[in-house]
Amino acid sequence: MSLLAEIGTPHDVASLAPDRLADLAAEVRAEIVRVTSLRGGHLASNLGTVELCIALLRAFEPPRDAVLFDVSHQAYAWKLLTGRAGAFGTLRTTGGLSGFLRRAESPYDVFGAGHAGTALSAALGIATARDLRGEPGAVVAVVGDASMANGVSLEALDNAPGAPRRLVVVLNDNGMSIGAPTGALSRALRSGGAEAAFARFGFRTAGPVDGHDVSALVAAFEEAKRAGGPVLVRVSTRKGRGFAPAERDPEPWHSTGPFDPATGRRATVPAGFVRWSDAFGAFLCEEAARDPRIFAITAGMADGTGLSGFAKSRPERFRDVGICEAHELTFAAGLAAAGMRPVAAVYSTFFQRAWDNFVHDAALQGLPVLLALDRAGVVPGDGATHHGVFDVALLRGVPGVVVMAPRTPCEMRRMLRTALGLSGPSGVRWPRGAARDDTASDDGTALPVGRAAELSRTEERPPAAIWTLGPEDAYADAVRDALLALGVGSVRVDARFAKPVDAALLRAQAAAGGNPFAATPALEAQADAGVRVFFTWEDGIRTGGFGDAVRDVLSGHPSRPRVVSFGWPDEFLPHASSRADLLRACGLEPAAAAAAIRNALER
Amino acid sequence: MSLLAEIGTPHDVASLAPDRLADLAAEVRAEIVRVTSLRGGHLASNLGTVELCIALLRAFEPPRDAVLFDVSHQAYAWKLLTGRAGAFGTLRTTGGLSGFLRRAESPYDVFGAGHAGTALSAALGIATARDLRGEPGAVVAVVGDASMANGVSLEALDNAPGAPRRLVVVLNDNGMSIGAPTGALSRALRSGGAEAAFARFGFRTAGPVDGHDVSALVAAFEEAKRAGGPVLVRVSTRKGRGFAPAERDPEPWHSTGPFDPATGRRATVPAGFVRWSDAFGAFLCEEAARDPRIFAITAGMADGTGLSGFAKSRPERFRDVGICEAHELTFAAGLAAAGMRPVAAVYSTFFQRAWDNFVHDAALQGLPVLLALDRAGVVPGDGATHHGVFDVALLRGVPGVVVMAPRTPCEMRRMLRTALGLSGPSGVRWPRGAARDDTASDDGTALPVGRAAELSRTEERPPAAIWTLGPEDAYADAVRDALLALGVGSVRVDARFAKPVDAALLRAQAAAGGNPFAATPALEAQADAGVRVFFTWEDGIRTGGFGDAVRDVLSGHPSRPRVVSFGWPDEFLPHASSRADLLRACGLEPAAAAAAIRNALER
Repeated sequence: MSLLAEIGTPHDVASLAPDRLADLAAEVRAEIVRVTSLRGGHLASNLGTVELCIALLRAFEPPRDAVLFDVSHQAYAWKLLTGRAGAFGTLRTTGGLSGFLRRAESPYDVFGAGHAGTALSAALGIATARDLRGEPGAVVAVVGDASMANGVSLEALDNAPGAPRRLVVVLNDNGMSIGAPTGALSRALRSGGAEAAFARFGFRTAGPVDGHDVSALVAAFEEAKRAGGPVLVRVSTRKGRGFAPAERDPEPWHSTGPFDPATGRRATVPAGFVRWSDAFGAFLCEEAARDPRIFAITAGMADGTGLSGFAKSRPERFRDVGICEAHELTFAAGLAAAGMRPVAAVYSTFFQRAWDNFVHDAALQGLPVLLALDRAGVVPGDGATHHGVFDVALLRGVPGVVVMAPRTPCEMRRMLRTALGLSGPSGVRWPRGAARDDTASDDGTALPVGRAAELSRTEERPPAAIWTLGPEDAYADAVRDALLALGVGSVRVDARFAKPVDAALLRAQAAAGGNPFAATPALEAQADAGVRVFFTWEDGIRTGGFGDAVRDVLSGHPSRPRVVSFGWPDEFLPHASSRADLLRACGLEPAAAAAAIRNALER
Repeated sequence: MSLLAEIGTPHDVASLAPDRLADLAAEVRAEIVRVTSLRGGHLASNLGTVELCIALLRAFEPPRDAVLFDVSHQAYAWKLLTGRAGAFGTLRTTGGLSGFLRRAESPYDVFGAGHAGTALSAALGIATARDLRGEPGAVVAVVGDASMANGVSLEALDNAPGAPRRLVVVLNDNGMSIGAPTGALSRALRSGGAEAAFARFGFRTAGPVDGHDVSALVAAFEEAKRAGGPVLVRVSTRKGRGFAPAERDPEPWHSTGPFDPATGRRATVPAGFVRWSDAFGAFLCEEAARDPRIFAITAGMADGTGLSGFAKSRPERFRDVGICEAHELTFAAGLAAAGMRPVAAVYSTFFQRAWDNFVHDAALQGLPVLLALDRAGVVPGDGATHHGVFDVALLRGVPGVVVMAPRTPCEMRRMLRTALGLSGPSGVRWPRGAARDDTASDDGTALPVGRAAELSRTEERPPAAIWTLGPEDAYADAVRDALLALGVGSVRVDARFAKPVDAALLRAQAAAGGNPFAATPALEAQADAGVRVFFTWEDGIRTGGFGDAVRDVLSGHPSRPRVVSFGWPDEFLPHASSRADLLRACGLEPAAAAAAIRNALER
């Protein structure tokens, strides 16, 4: 850390003697490996851009020159070299540095990101504004070859000519997407086609430059600065550079949990547990063997979504479309229109890119596209750009869509089976990580659509009901116990369906301990025979979510029960060390839930 | 109509003697002009594709061969020639033919559309499914040059190679987008670059073919069918062909209201009225003269969103980015990050393509991007793909966004002024059409954020409150009068803000005729001093919309008021002759609202 300790500002990088740069790069790499081994994070991509970040800081003068990183999962070196080396140990922890660029974190982070394909559009905006005001300063967008094939990048490329005088696009060609590269553009970019393509869009082009040779990079950037118009510099980098396990096999090291930096050994799933993604992949392989209509699609996340096995065993019914979520969903709708049963796997947060494709192409036409939403709920380490908290609210408004969230891996199998049996669109969401493996108890049946499951009750006619969506046993049990400590009994329900919500059971519970036929005005006088407070918890935004659906169902009910709905508040949640930290910060711990329920009962 | 009357199925087109094709085309054109002059609709695009549709039906065998039309605003001839000539007079009317392709309408409509850029993705899906099953039949995607520059098209293009054996892309090059063409790709497509670009993506290429020469088109399509892989056929057509006013000036004739077919004269805005779009454009021109930070953006809709004047007077602070809504919003966020005040104008329904760009790039970073949402609410003539009914629900879940809907053009000016004064993101929505012009009464002030306006009350302490969002005076007055006829008084509120909703006024009204400090448990006994039923109406989906926000605010209120929220139901609404027809079909007329309010009061 001797050199890194000297780097207070980017100016210190620029003024460092050339013969010390290799040592600086080695220190930066060692620090990235050390901290990522403790905190988890994006490793392979960040090890590939160390020299690139050093060269950018030597050739340009940020923040006067604006440097943007697409996705920004390759900017750890940037953080270390722009005044954040001392804080780097707090990476991805509560109150610490973010794993992505954030405008609020540093003046050197001129544009934050977490989703792919935005850097070129944003750079055009920044360059256009500066040109209008006649301000100095270049605008640099660092974009990976996989991100360049995203539709937003391509739209931006189409809009690039003419406008910006000092725009430099650094095409970070690392020979792969998160997984293996796909698509004609990716191939063209690597076959020298990048230069031809960009020339057509009005760019001057340079490279390929060795992305691990600082002086070659600086020379190319200096040349680009002197050019009068937009310039593309193609840079060849190696993912995982300097950490042998990641160099050998970059895909699993793209984003990793903590590991042993000496051996590359990582925590495995404990015995008796199964990753949600793996449970999904295994189920889909089984179903595909039975049903020739099943077709699986991913947008650059075959490994992350659990589809690697499917890709190997059923290559003819599998597509990795690259980081093109919008195309993924419309392609799925086309498959469905031709009689297939497409399953579009996508991380919840990236589904946000494709909402209209799901609505306009699948749902509006009533086509049976199954959305498999991985990483739903908060993703604490990654933070604001990656929390999968909007999906339920986004899907609740879409007519005709069945929306489910499993409590256990076994229930997930039954939900996927249910979805595949529908004639229309559906979505099933599950979180990142693993759960106790109860898949052996799958009885092979589907679920009745729109029916929740009552799991237990502490007494015959409890005044409170605890409805949760998803794998929330621990949370629900804690609420139940905290309520019992306050002398309040409860009935516990696994909601199963966010849409359609089980209105019949809600009304029955509100009316009189389970008799749906008692829900009449005459009951109003003896309303305390039924549930008087319904508590809902969902790992998603509260506004417009599952809780709102429950409130809507019960709003006209004669017994006028209260609905206390808990979910993530109306703010962008930061990254954190754990979900527990986020719950605490938002006042959403089970104890707070129990207190809110008792307050509502007392009113 | 002598020839059209003979056309029962596409087979009749295929078997027609070649020397009668010119007459058929003339009849089809005459019928398109006749019906569009009565019903309104997309005229210029449909007049350009008459020979193309005839040729497609002669060269291919639908529905065995699947023919898709991107956007499908150029498929009137397709409808006329696939068994729908007899019903064509019902175009865009309640229960009649849709102005777009719909799977539910005809087996010849294999994939519906209304938004741009989906045909190629869907065609890939259909072709992939057919190849998997070894089924015969080509898949043909007709895509306009403007749609080809949409990000979804480009993602699909990148994913085209290899897979489909019999994919034919017909690039309908009419030399323009809806407005003037923009973008490098558009230029490249027209300069012979299309062939080179598609060749790079693995396509064989043919053309340009004269798009008004049926035999040349058929020959090109026959050749394409014989090719072994994906083929691009570039076809040159002329928008508005055969109707002189539209040939001269296609942009205003892209989508039109009823007109006099003899003169081309169209209904103008009545004296004393102003189009919402024009009021927006005029305001923005004024503000831009005062504030050099204002920058206006449209995605191919300069005319439709009222920005043509701005484009002429401030070209340096205006961009038409083409049909690229996702890029539009991220480009806007880049401008905002560099200190500008971007105003991104977009039709409500097309904003659905760019939700994540608004969330991830603008809102998450707290950047002051102003979303100007035109065509919000139902758009009866166009129907399911064009109703702008999701925007409020989509925006309510986004942290930190201020969402407004003006009651009058004057209020619209004050809302836009309010939005431009915010430090963060905002959205203002207004419908298609015109309203009484009260802009002269604009006093130049902004609105207090989150404050509704009480407009009138029928008595001192009415039991009902009528809250509406947007220009809903007529609706609200009708509800008020119907309530009075039932002996129920009401207070009328212009909600102004969908987010943040005016919680203080809601609570005050619920408590005791306007005293916010009376909202205490002690009041519960005398709850009838306040409003007991809140009625909400919004021209948007009910699920997750403004009404849910009101229900949420009042759900914990000690006086336990009822909330009766009206909005569009949880289904995709069809096209219709009028909003009144849709209201009636959904049971949402003012009389039904009044009855629901009284029922709630009686419970």
